[in-house]
Amino acid sequence: MALIVMKFGGTSVADIDRIKNVADHVKREHAAGNKVAVVVSAMAGRTNELVDLVNQATRMADEREYDAVVSSGEQVTSGLLTLCLQDKGVPARSWQGWQIPLQTDEAHGKARISDIIPDDMLTSLDEGNVAVIAGFQGIAPNGRISTLGRGGSDTSAVAIAAALGADLCDIYTDVDGVYTTDPRIVPKAQRLDKISYEEMLEMASLGAKVLQTRSVELAMTQNVRLAVRSSFDDPASVEAVNMQTNSHIGTLVCSEEEIVEQQIVSGIAYAKDEAKVTLVGLADQPGIAAKVFGPLAEANINVDMIVQNVSADGATTDMTFTVAEPDLDRALEVVQEHEDELKFKDLQGATNIVKISIIGVGMRSHAGVAADMFKELSEKGINILAISTSEIKISILIDAAYQELAVRSLHSLFGLDQDDH
Amino acid sequence: MALIVMKFGGTSVADIDRIKNVADHVKREHAAGNKVAVVVSAMAGRTNELVDLVNQATRMADEREYDAVVSSGEQVTSGLLTLCLQDKGVPARSWQGWQIPLQTDEAHGKARISDIIPDDMLTSLDEGNVAVIAGFQGIAPNGRISTLGRGGSDTSAVAIAAALGADLCDIYTDVDGVYTTDPRIVPKAQRLDKISYEEMLEMASLGAKVLQTRSVELAMTQNVRLAVRSSFDDPASVEAVNMQTNSHIGTLVCSEEEIVEQQIVSGIAYAKDEAKVTLVGLADQPGIAAKVFGPLAEANINVDMIVQNVSADGATTDMTFTVAEPDLDRALEVVQEHEDELKFKDLQGATNIVKISIIGVGMRSHAGVAADMFKELSEKGINILAISTSEIKISILIDAAYQELAVRSLHSLFGLDQDDH
Repeated sequence: MALIVMKFGGTSVADIDRIKNVADHVKREHAAGNKVAVVVSAMAGRTNELVDLVNQATRMADEREYDAVVSSGEQVTSGLLTLCLQDKGVPARSWQGWQIPLQTDEAHGKARISDIIPDDMLTSLDEGNVAVIAGFQGIAPNGRISTLGRGGSDTSAVAIAAALGADLCDIYTDVDGVYTTDPRIVPKAQRLDKISYEEMLEMASLGAKVLQTRSVELAMTQNVRLAVRSSFDDPASVEAVNMQTNSHIGTLVCSEEEIVEQQIVSGIAYAKDEAKVTLVGLADQPGIAAKVFGPLAEANINVDMIVQNVSADGATTDMTFTVAEPDLDRALEVVQEHEDELKFKDLQGATNIVKISIIGVGMRSHAGVAADMFKELSEKGINILAISTSEIKISILIDAAYQELAVRSLHSLFGLDQDDH
Repeated sequence: MALIVMKFGGTSVADIDRIKNVADHVKREHAAGNKVAVVVSAMAGRTNELVDLVNQATRMADEREYDAVVSSGEQVTSGLLTLCLQDKGVPARSWQGWQIPLQTDEAHGKARISDIIPDDMLTSLDEGNVAVIAGFQGIAPNGRISTLGRGGSDTSAVAIAAALGADLCDIYTDVDGVYTTDPRIVPKAQRLDKISYEEMLEMASLGAKVLQTRSVELAMTQNVRLAVRSSFDDPASVEAVNMQTNSHIGTLVCSEEEIVEQQIVSGIAYAKDEAKVTLVGLADQPGIAAKVFGPLAEANINVDMIVQNVSADGATTDMTFTVAEPDLDRALEVVQEHEDELKFKDLQGATNIVKISIIGVGMRSHAGVAADMFKELSEKGINILAISTSEIKISILIDAAYQELAVRSLHSLFGLDQDDH
């Protein structure tokens, strides 16, 4: 018998029929003898409706009241799933964040979890009840409802799994796992059986939308084993699989040690929401970087990749950096404001770029991965605009027109293509 | 400076524009220097939507989960009204039932209030904040959300007014007060400036829908002064009226002693949702009434009016009684099941009847009111099928076809018609 946490997002609970389908998934795990805690999001679209009402009420919302309004969506789903479970003969009760209690700080609207006191819920689980938990919410020290920010239900699920000492936290979503890359671009992309926390973290922060970065971080630090699975599978045909043994359902996100056969490169991610800023003919003098990036940091604009080239005359330099696309206009303004100091000849902004990243813990022990990558791209005639690396990933910036070609070529190069059946 | 409770129902908070209008009403009272607590219902239609979702989930709902789902409607409105108030510069915060706390018993779905601990809310009111309270809900001893039953927000408002020691509880609704009778039937009906608790209780239980019977009972026992006012008035044109002085806005429901010029008859109510059962040729013997009404009581069917006539032969009797219309079929079944014991010749059910009631505390000290009433009806050719009386009301049962004629005639007879202007 295991204790498992199952999390279902908004599309999985979009209407009563979908909620009944979720109840069948939960019933399967409960019938297999597991203790089951379920974390649910609001019904798809409901959170947006509530946010819209708040925005109609005022332009400067008190975050405490925002939380009171918006948290109601998860409250409704928790009650409805409990009723559907009871209707199928599964004993269950709903838990609001303040009932557990799941305690947070007072940063309403984007609160961080400070503590979870699981005693009452554990007693209820011991009595055989499924615990159906309203995700995304907790209670702040002021006694008010707090929310964890958009996508916070993943974080709720992982934190609750840690507090309960769960054997596994199943994240049910609208895809059936984590893939080597986006299957819409590379039809030969494969679902990964296992991926390490570190790799998943890079995948998530580099554009793979399947899990919230924050929830993966929390799973890594709390050592919670995560599985990404599809809620759209037919519950009746899914066997009660104990994910502790080898399984072919979904992707397990776990510590590196659990992964026996480690690939050098596990996956390829891409991010299109980057924009490029280039300062042409900048005076090449000490401290010039600080003069560029200091004001950007003050304006709360995150700079991602930076590349600096000495120009032909030797006295000036060209500097290129990337920011998130929504920040581009503001970044250009900030730099323009400092024109007198920086003395650049030209300032350019562009959004027709894409960041491609190869990710794998195997890179730590394998030299030559970067060289292989650059050679492949060169042979395909793809120009690299910027490079950034970490211990387990290499990211490059290229012209957006070459996105599909680059992803497909690298996917083949690093042996990730699925065999034809 | 007074402490007032204002209550707004679902149609008054149906959308953001209506909620902003409510905020203007609240702002007016707050600006006049009053401490203000506001009780709100769910946005019109939302509670029905939530109940519908519950019914789709299961046919046998766990009332605790029903409460978790359905109470979310008031939670949303409380946050939205708070935001609208803040947007207009009025300091405010929302209060859920469990935050106050408003404690109830564990009769989920129809809970009764056991205690309200107003200390935190009074502190917040003293600091100048408007308290915006989610109506209809509280917290049960099991730590779960409880609801007070449909229309429970009126009861919330009166109970909170009692707990806070409020000077007045304003019930804002879609009519501008309590009328001498239904103005749709009698265009000359007048709005009452004042009405006693006892009369309002009779009016409410006899078909006038403006206030919940339960909330009037509570107001009477807790001595809370109630006012019925319209939320559709233009807030800007309504002066900050202290209802403790004479006022021409709305109807004040108060103790009899506050009403100086007491009418003999204050109002005329009618109820069409009654049905009539007649047992013809029943054996006229001691204990026959117990044999009829015992089984009905066991079946949880409420009997309202009863009339028994000795028939021509002297040995048998005809008995007629009324039940709520939805109970008619079940009442007929129950009586039929006991046919052997009761030995009636015929059993008849009918719904084409109406109950007309004249109500007034002045009847206590005036003889002849019933005689005047019966004479008037007789002159109009209206046959009285049954009569029941209390100290302050006389109810009669008549053929439904005569409803308008009877109400209009009695309205004139007892001097309730508005003067022509």
